[in-house]
Amino acid sequence: MIDEVRSITALGKVANYIPALADGRKTDLAVSVCTIDGQYFQAGTVEKSFTLQSISKVLALAFVLDIKGEEEVFSKVGMEPSGDPYYSISKLEFTNPTKPFNPMINAGALAITSLLPGHSMKKKLENFIDYVSCLTGNRKIEYNEKVAKSEFTTSFLNRSLLYYMKQFGVIEGNVEDIIDLYTKQCAVEIDCLQLARIGAIFSLNGQDPEKRNQLITKRTAKICKAFMVTCGMYNASGEFAIKVGVPAKSGVSGGILAVVPNRFGIGIFGPALDQRGNSIGGWKLLEKMADQFDINIF
Amino acid sequence: MIDEVRSITALGKVANYIPALADGRKTDLAVSVCTIDGQYFQAGTVEKSFTLQSISKVLALAFVLDIKGEEEVFSKVGMEPSGDPYYSISKLEFTNPTKPFNPMINAGALAITSLLPGHSMKKKLENFIDYVSCLTGNRKIEYNEKVAKSEFTTSFLNRSLLYYMKQFGVIEGNVEDIIDLYTKQCAVEIDCLQLARIGAIFSLNGQDPEKRNQLITKRTAKICKAFMVTCGMYNASGEFAIKVGVPAKSGVSGGILAVVPNRFGIGIFGPALDQRGNSIGGWKLLEKMADQFDINIF
Amino acid sequence: MIDEVRSITALGKVANYIPALADGRKTDLAVSVCTIDGQYFQAGTVEKSFTLQSISKVLALAFVLDIKGEEEVFSKVGMEPSGDPYYSISKLEFTNPTKPFNPMINAGALAITSLLPGHSMKKKLENFIDYVSCLTGNRKIEYNEKVAKSEFTTSFLNRSLLYYMKQFGVIEGNVEDIIDLYTKQCAVEIDCLQLARIGAIFSLNGQDPEKRNQLITKRTAKICKAFMVTCGMYNASGEFAIKVGVPAKSGVSGGILAVVPNRFGIGIFGPALDQRGNSIGGWKLLEKMADQFDINIF
Amino acid sequence: MIDEVRSITALGKVANYIPALADGRKTDLAVSVCTIDGQYFQAGTVEKSFTLQSISKVLALAFVLDIKGEEEVFSKVGMEPSGDPYYSISKLEFTNPTKPFNPMINAGALAITSLLPGHSMKKKLENFIDYVSCLTGNRKIEYNEKVAKSEFTTSFLNRSLLYYMKQFGVIEGNVEDIIDLYTKQCAVEIDCLQLARIGAIFSLNGQDPEKRNQLITKRTAKICKAFMVTCGMYNASGEFAIKVGVPAKSGVSGGILAVVPNRFGIGIFGPALDQRGNSIGGWKLLEKMADQFDINIF
Repeated sequence: MIDEVRSITALGKVANYIPALADGRKTDLAVSVCTIDGQYFQAGTVEKSFTLQSISKVLALAFVLDIKGEEEVFSKVGMEPSGDPYYSISKLEFTNPTKPFNPMINAGALAITSLLPGHSMKKKLENFIDYVSCLTGNRKIEYNEKVAKSEFTTSFLNRSLLYYMKQFGVIEGNVEDIIDLYTKQCAVEIDCLQLARIGAIFSLNGQDPEKRNQLITKRTAKICKAFMVTCGMYNASGEFAIKVGVPAKSGVSGGILAVVPNRFGIGIFGPALDQRGNSIGGWKLLEKMADQFDINIF
Repeated sequence: MIDEVRSITALGKVANYIPALADGRKTDLAVSVCTIDGQYFQAGTVEKSFTLQSISKVLALAFVLDIKGEEEVFSKVGMEPSGDPYYSISKLEFTNPTKPFNPMINAGALAITSLLPGHSMKKKLENFIDYVSCLTGNRKIEYNEKVAKSEFTTSFLNRSLLYYMKQFGVIEGNVEDIIDLYTKQCAVEIDCLQLARIGAIFSLNGQDPEKRNQLITKRTAKICKAFMVTCGMYNASGEFAIKVGVPAKSGVSGGILAVVPNRFGIGIFGPALDQRGNSIGGWKLLEKMADQFDINIF
Repeated sequence: MIDEVRSITALGKVANYIPALADGRKTDLAVSVCTIDGQYFQAGTVEKSFTLQSISKVLALAFVLDIKGEEEVFSKVGMEPSGDPYYSISKLEFTNPTKPFNPMINAGALAITSLLPGHSMKKKLENFIDYVSCLTGNRKIEYNEKVAKSEFTTSFLNRSLLYYMKQFGVIEGNVEDIIDLYTKQCAVEIDCLQLARIGAIFSLNGQDPEKRNQLITKRTAKICKAFMVTCGMYNASGEFAIKVGVPAKSGVSGGILAVVPNRFGIGIFGPALDQRGNSIGGWKLLEKMADQFDINIF
Repeated sequence: MIDEVRSITALGKVANYIPALADGRKTDLAVSVCTIDGQYFQAGTVEKSFTLQSISKVLALAFVLDIKGEEEVFSKVGMEPSGDPYYSISKLEFTNPTKPFNPMINAGALAITSLLPGHSMKKKLENFIDYVSCLTGNRKIEYNEKVAKSEFTTSFLNRSLLYYMKQFGVIEGNVEDIIDLYTKQCAVEIDCLQLARIGAIFSLNGQDPEKRNQLITKRTAKICKAFMVTCGMYNASGEFAIKVGVPAKSGVSGGILAVVPNRFGIGIFGPALDQRGNSIGGWKLLEKMADQFDINIF
């Protein structure tokens, strides 16, 4: 299946808005499945690591929801899909009081990052990395300094969103500090196997597929999966719900985290992107898996 | 459970934008469940009939999808949640080419209505009513003339949407004819038992819960459920996905059609509405059912 | 000067959105000047008649302001330039309460037309035509039935605007009647000489250049000229104020009414349009006149 | 006249978004007139100095237009009124390519500031202050450090606008540097007499009212006056054009610079503001002057 799909990657484009991302090999395509009893299936070079980018949005959300609680989180960020591209700012202006529509668009994700637990920015980052490390089964997780730096230098739109939100009290603290933290959060490196394992945890409503301890509360896991369905695949989320029908979150590095509730988690890496920022090969693979394995949850 | 919830209806408001709807008794609250093996459970006056209103959007969509196919339907209407209220027109102006974001907002629903099969408006209406009748198990279905007329006389916003779409080729034909058809489609009367039965059909991916014949194709049933999740509860769909987590479609008459895949369908009637147009008691009931019966699909 | 400019008309496009307008000869270009003491200067075929189109907006505004008064008019229509194309609807949705930004965009102009004095639509039209006739020195004025009919059949956007405004109480009455009246108002025929004479009246703050009787009140004439500056040249009004600097109103038939306060009025006809709907040759001519005759009012 | 008007100041509100501005005495109201032959008339405490705030936008524009030329300036900033509040960001998102609508809204003004001549930020500020000093007849001009600092600390929206524009290449350079320069530009102190003198220069199309040397080119003076009419009084510019009818630019400190072409300049200070940010007493005074001295240019 993966070979059939690989040819479609020629139609995509590797993200180049962050210089360090432009290194991705366009024809790369790998997929890993982790079942709820901890078995792995895989195709392609699944050990190749890549940065989380927007996939980190859903992990930071899970972390912050479990630490701070729904009330605090949803006082800052809404629950509705917006229909806009992830970088859009205009809805902030048209919403009164100012509140990002959801935690999957950049405005909302930045607000979530500002809520990460920790007494300093350094500690917040450490805590987030420890959290991801825990989800991956205590693998050593690190962020890619080159990617983080590259993104830090160029993410003017995110600064624009942050200053806008600071004006209206959605975020507190220093914008440069939050950008620094956010770009490092996005630059955390992972591979398909680890991503599939995290998918399996969501699949099990927060339980570790091996030890069966609860890593994420059931409530938080369900909230995250709901967001993945309504707004996890950028402004193609509706189409993805129709064509594939599973909770998923993509990133511009070409990663996709997908979840088949009570069955398995999926980790994909394919850096050739379609126009809306989703891995073109990854999407196609998931469509094929939907046909073959009847994973559509609806 | 229904008695616990009934008190919350005092906080809602019966829709009065269509004069004939303002007759609803604010404290009415009824729920019916139809399991996939055709058993019914119920509470409240479940035989009281009400008009489909926006619930008709998902039935018309299912009908048109099965008759015309995805390609034609999605050439006219998009697949993405919009984040806007159902009556919004501004996204039509900002989208190029002009295309309603999805079939659950009024613009998209009107475009779907214009695609109903039939050589005349009269025949299109008959076909739609026959379709609904078939889904309810061949009960005699009729539309409420008084409600239809009342809505026909006052739906200026829908005419505005239609003329806007006619200008840009999204719809063809006479606007007054489409309004007439749409208001009658919305005025089709149903009761909770029938609605629950339709829910059970969606739950079974299109099969009749009694005779097990396929009334809706599996593909269409899944598409409809995906839309119900991403945009079925007006601009509170994201919140509903988080708090309840099942495909559902509400109408301003106070009806809600909800679907628990592979388990049961739910029909609710509670005309006291919250600010975004959803039955306030119905929503609360579904939240309680989500807790008690673990129906959240995520 | 006119021959120098004529060559530029090759770059423009004759409006074809109203089929009957597509007959305009692209190279036509005529200009007439009427001084405040009633002298005429002219170049090109100034007697060729054309339809007022949007130029009628400022005449209807003058008429309605003098009959109904500022308070009534500005309770329905605002005073601010909008920055949007004339046909835009989205600002209506973002303004609370709903109110067209100004009487020069279609939404506002339609609201003004709905206020024309007269007990029937027929009488309102007669009154408007009599008003224009009076301004032109009692020439026989008629509307072009073919153009009116053509526009009536195709103006779906204007119906969309009207129904939107009807929903929110900006206009009353029957939409089809108002469209009928508006398309006839826009189809009133005039020539450059007559247009220049009307310009001279505005130039004299409402006085007839020959008989010196007051045809428009001074206050209304000044209000109209202010609107011509801030929003008379579609969404190029700001640029026109900078490059030419006189009150002016254009129409998609290729007409321009311009006013040099206390000096003269200008009537132009040149049906080749630029992208924003202004006569390309007419604009160029006015730029040249601004240089040569120092007409910029700022 | 000034005493009649003073009572209306009770209805206004002194700006408090910049803490240092909140010191303004609500009942202050002063006006100065400088005729084109250099005579002064005045009422109220005209020597009381205040910060330019948005009035600086038109002075920076004049300076940059004369140094860099129209072509460069209008490649960065548009010429059209926007209908939006001065701090609005959404139009930047809806315009392709990204370009502020005009130099009187904050986005455009910040872009103009970034074009001020000078090899360093310090030199740019010096050059701007020298320019204003020159316009005031070589008075010693300074900026108010406390106000500048106060605004620097709190202007998150302006940073948001700048980062948005930096993303799309509208501005270059360091955002913090531009904010620092802009807040100092806005904090330049002036009094009504000086403001009236600057008005007289614009009135004379750029000539010094005493020495008759050309301080601003005629072309630039006219462009500035055109912008003052179409967008000088925030999103009440259209109303001001109708009710007063002269080029004017207001600031949230309560200052207004107004120009009666070929007659006189007006400087006003009245810190009580109306809802759209204009001096409530100043506006009323200008309405009365329009009636009494027939200053309306239309």
